[in-house]
Amino acid sequence: MSATAAKKPKIDGEKDGIGNGPDAAAQEAIEKIDEMQNEVDRLNEQASEEILKVEQKYVKLRWPLFQKRSALIEKIPNFWVTTFVNHPQISALLDEDDEDALHYLNKVEVQEFDDIKTGYTINFYFRDNPYFENDLISKEFHLNETGDPSSTSTPIKWKEGKDLTRRETQQNNAKNKRKHEEPESFFSWFNDPGDAGADELGEVIKDDIWPNPLQYYLVPEGELDDEEDEDEED
Amino acid sequence: MSATAAKKPKIDGEKDGIGNGPDAAAQEAIEKIDEMQNEVDRLNEQASEEILKVEQKYVKLRWPLFQKRSALIEKIPNFWVTTFVNHPQISALLDEDDEDALHYLNKVEVQEFDDIKTGYTINFYFRDNPYFENDLISKEFHLNETGDPSSTSTPIKWKEGKDLTRRETQQNNAKNKRKHEEPESFFSWFNDPGDAGADELGEVIKDDIWPNPLQYYLVPEGELDDEEDEDEED
Ligand SMILES: [Ca+2]
Ligand SMILES: [Ca+2]
Ligand SMILES: [Mg+2]
Ligand SMILES: [Mg+2]
Repeated sequence: MSATAAKKPKIDGEKDGIGNGPDAAAQEAIEKIDEMQNEVDRLNEQASEEILKVEQKYVKLRWPLFQKRSALIEKIPNFWVTTFVNHPQISALLDEDDEDALHYLNKVEVQEFDDIKTGYTINFYFRDNPYFENDLISKEFHLNETGDPSSTSTPIKWKEGKDLTRRETQQNNAKNKRKHEEPESFFSWFNDPGDAGADELGEVIKDDIWPNPLQYYLVPEGELDDEEDEDEED
Repeated sequence: MSATAAKKPKIDGEKDGIGNGPDAAAQEAIEKIDEMQNEVDRLNEQASEEILKVEQKYVKLRWPLFQKRSALIEKIPNFWVTTFVNHPQISALLDEDDEDALHYLNKVEVQEFDDIKTGYTINFYFRDNPYFENDLISKEFHLNETGDPSSTSTPIKWKEGKDLTRRETQQNNAKNKRKHEEPESFFSWFNDPGDAGADELGEVIKDDIWPNPLQYYLVPEGELDDEEDEDEED
């Protein structure tokens, strides 16, 4: 059995002195396969570029529909807070104060960069509210100079005593430590450059909510009734 | 706070008797968003179809290169057995007899179905060999009548006493049971309709080996030397 010999193909042009009849032919074939592999790689790159162009085209075609959708959504009271509260992953990040502040959220917008692949921005538009001065809070995910994923956010101008990311956690004693390993507030996300390459909340909004928010807004009546218990502590 | 009320949007046309000024406007907006979502869905389907066409085009463009590559590979002794032995996932499925039989494998071919998405076939072409009569053993993965993934394989015509999938496992006692939970032979894969929707070996060959087998054939010398110990038990 010569499998172990075959495991070490000679490809660096050195002869092994055993005679180079079949070896030379095999060597030549290997070099031709290697050249051919470069052609395959070029085809693969072309295919990726063409697919990207199709995706870009459809991002543009969908955009006017999403613009019209935003205008319609603004006619529906509490559309976004309802959608977020009904979404299992986002709901888990919301406490009551977050939920109250999100009643003032009247528009959400996800904008992919023109080339699609280097990043996206999520815009949150707010009505005048008791929490912060901003009309628009954005979080942008992009590749930085070194090609690594990175994120930047609008600084939130909190009103006096209203910073939801810096609340006194009165229950913050050893007993309750576990509880407080959770993020303090949904709005902490805007402070957190985090692991921007895999920002779970950003991706949920971009890939799950934004393509079809209505499905989360329209949760069948009765499914979420047990949420009401949470108001007891006030 | 009216979040809990907002959680139960009225969408079935029934009025709740609280007055239908904003409710009627919101209801109309919801219906328009729903129609718009259908337009978005149609665009998404069109995008998928266009992307599929690009992929199909490149499958066709790559095919003649892969045909030439197969002809070149046939000039290289033990190309496929070496490639398989060097591949970490496939190597784990091979015992010595499998490896010996695979010395007679002189051509591997992956053919995607014309529509790409409904299936693919892997063809294994063998030289005359002491194990079986077949020149070609194929495994095909496809969607069956009900749309579920399914697989079919060429029955292997084993020569007398050479069926690698039915070897006497002399060591098959309690002590060695653990060892024998491994699949009996690489060739058992052809008997096994398995979980065709996620056939690991099929997908490794189609998506990892077939696009670039040379990278596994050309493992740097010395990396696999410890494999030789396995010959001790003969
Ligand atoms: Ca409350
Ligand atoms: Ca042996
Ligand atoms: Mg909650
Ligand atoms: Mg092995």
